[in-house]
Amino acid sequence: TFTRGMQTVTLIPGDGIGPEISTAVMKIFEAAKVPVQWEERNVTAIKGPGGKWMIPPEAKESMDRSKIGLKGPLKTPIAAGHPSMNLLLRKTFDLYANVRPCVSIEGYKTPYTDVDLVTIRENTEGEYSGIEHVIVDGVVQSIKLITEEASRRIAEYAFEYARNNQRASVTAVHKANIMRMSDGLFLRKCREVAENYKDVKFTEMYLDTVCLNMVQDPTQFDVLVMPNLYGDILSDLCAGLIGGLGVTPSGNIGANGVAIFESVHGTAPDIAGKDLANPTALLLSAVMMLRHMGQHGHAKRIEAACFDTIREKKVLTKDLGGNSKCSEFTAEICRRVQDME
Amino acid sequence: TFTRGMQTVTLIPGDGIGPEISTAVMKIFEAAKVPVQWEERNVTAIKGPGGKWMIPPEAKESMDRSKIGLKGPLKTPIAAGHPSMNLLLRKTFDLYANVRPCVSIEGYKTPYTDVDLVTIRENTEGEYSGIEHVIVDGVVQSIKLITEEASRRIAEYAFEYARNNQRASVTAVHKANIMRMSDGLFLRKCREVAENYKDVKFTEMYLDTVCLNMVQDPTQFDVLVMPNLYGDILSDLCAGLIGGLGVTPSGNIGANGVAIFESVHGTAPDIAGKDLANPTALLLSAVMMLRHMGQHGHAKRIEAACFDTIREKKVLTKDLGGNSKCSEFTAEICRRVQDME
Ligand SMILES: CC(C)[C@H](C(=O)O)[C@@H](O)C(=O)O
Ligand SMILES: CC(C)[C@H](C(=O)O)[C@@H](O)C(=O)O
Repeated sequence: TFTRGMQTVTLIPGDGIGPEISTAVMKIFEAAKVPVQWEERNVTAIKGPGGKWMIPPEAKESMDRSKIGLKGPLKTPIAAGHPSMNLLLRKTFDLYANVRPCVSIEGYKTPYTDVDLVTIRENTEGEYSGIEHVIVDGVVQSIKLITEEASRRIAEYAFEYARNNQRASVTAVHKANIMRMSDGLFLRKCREVAENYKDVKFTEMYLDTVCLNMVQDPTQFDVLVMPNLYGDILSDLCAGLIGGLGVTPSGNIGANGVAIFESVHGTAPDIAGKDLANPTALLLSAVMMLRHMGQHGHAKRIEAACFDTIREKKVLTKDLGGNSKCSEFTAEICRRVQDME
Repeated sequence: TFTRGMQTVTLIPGDGIGPEISTAVMKIFEAAKVPVQWEERNVTAIKGPGGKWMIPPEAKESMDRSKIGLKGPLKTPIAAGHPSMNLLLRKTFDLYANVRPCVSIEGYKTPYTDVDLVTIRENTEGEYSGIEHVIVDGVVQSIKLITEEASRRIAEYAFEYARNNQRASVTAVHKANIMRMSDGLFLRKCREVAENYKDVKFTEMYLDTVCLNMVQDPTQFDVLVMPNLYGDILSDLCAGLIGGLGVTPSGNIGANGVAIFESVHGTAPDIAGKDLANPTALLLSAVMMLRHMGQHGHAKRIEAACFDTIREKKVLTKDLGGNSKCSEFTAEICRRVQDME
């Protein structure tokens, strides 16, 4: 996947504001001279041979080669029976860990300061098994599936992440007081894995208690690991604490280095094509991607340029409280990145 | 249940600080001349004939007569296999709706102001069905059970509540994009019931979106209705927004007027018996109880006396930022209640 020292990244611009913010990221990467070569792909689901939904072979093939993807927002499927692209991508590439660092951005006012935590969500099973039945008329059951293997895998990921990112503690989030067997299994695996990471503190907390404490004092949390649905909830809650999905990066990690980094906000069709979008979430996702690729120097510079721009408050997009266009905000970050060289 | 115009209420003082805060509430009710007669009962679970856990017959019998209970905190069962008393009480009296008004308290500083919302949680089924299996070694399933009947019942409760409490809107909180059949059924029932309450606005929102928006601007929410687990999470999250479980009241409502009102904080064994506890959550739960009993005048006066005391900041318990004892805080509220007559 290297061409003259360049690493290939599959770029999925996405819908709505996706192409604009993707262009912004590409410009900033160019200004920073990041040795990345983009391979643009569309992932609109298609029906495969057996009538099964799948992502287009060109996108799959690119990801299989590059192993790294950067993805903008995709519009929610409207056709009945059409799958969620997010779920399909997670499944296709077995992206078992959803990682969301939530760090307060200096200069961007929210009710909280000094938030610095990471949610790590099991991305493949739990309440998302998709198994549901009608038992009798008016009685429906959904099955939450928890496996030893997936629980151990995500716990190991969380502890590795903590160790590699100088994080002091990992908290397992659960409702094992209610779901004794399923969340109980998840929790047991976390405890077992914790035994192998004596350098990282391990704690356990009920999901409801986490939510309560989170809005009262988020600074008490560090790395949080949890089953699928709890992660869906907590990752969005935590994004809210630092300013919302417009500034929160996200990464979906699979085995063997495969990963897709993405902005998790919507496609914002109302402002699409008007040069008004805020590329921060996609940019910070691209920064996560650089760290994943071992490009720490580039990651640090681009991140600093982005945060400096926000802190200075001179060139900001509307949603960040300014009057600038996406292209102006992008140019300002490019300027700062170049100044840092 | 009336003795000389007095209505009987079953009082379950509970463990730890339970007896102290119960005494505080009784004193304030006495000062306010509330026509309530307390019947104290212990609810520590006992093993019934078939080996089944049940609440003591004296407590059951009292509740069956009085129909109204006020309950302090109960310690988490330590014995293996011992049931959660909270779950057992909900089950015994079919308390299908958990209601939690979350209102910002003037003078008590939190990151938010003007919160004024109510979470209504389905309390009997969903993820709390207790049905779990080991499929094969290392693979466990928990069953989430959603019924048409319970969904319609809680939706009707929510809309009735909105109408009777001059609330403008009801939002159904769900993940029907993932649990299409179970949350789908819940949502469908909410929609159907909404048809009969054209005076109340009905909206639907994903749980993750609610969490995100909640921490960004809770003032946009009014009445929220949701399945069991989502309610467990959201009710605690919302309590956090207004200052935590120490100031948040709660009511569990069943059919035919049966209801138990409770403080949902812990037993605080570290400060039990030291006259340091904060009785606010139990007192505000008792205020909810008075409204449920149609005693609106008494409810209003006691609530005002409590809020005035907190706003004035002169006599506050430690957790509220003061130096006063539970008995002093209680006496101050009594004084104000009497002054209002
Ligand atoms: C779009 C939806 C399927 C998805 C989820 O519930 O996982 C989203 O909320 C997310 O967090 O990526
Ligand atoms: C104690 C526990 C069983 C309970 C629950 O999960 O419902 C608690 O969190 C609650 O909200 O009452």
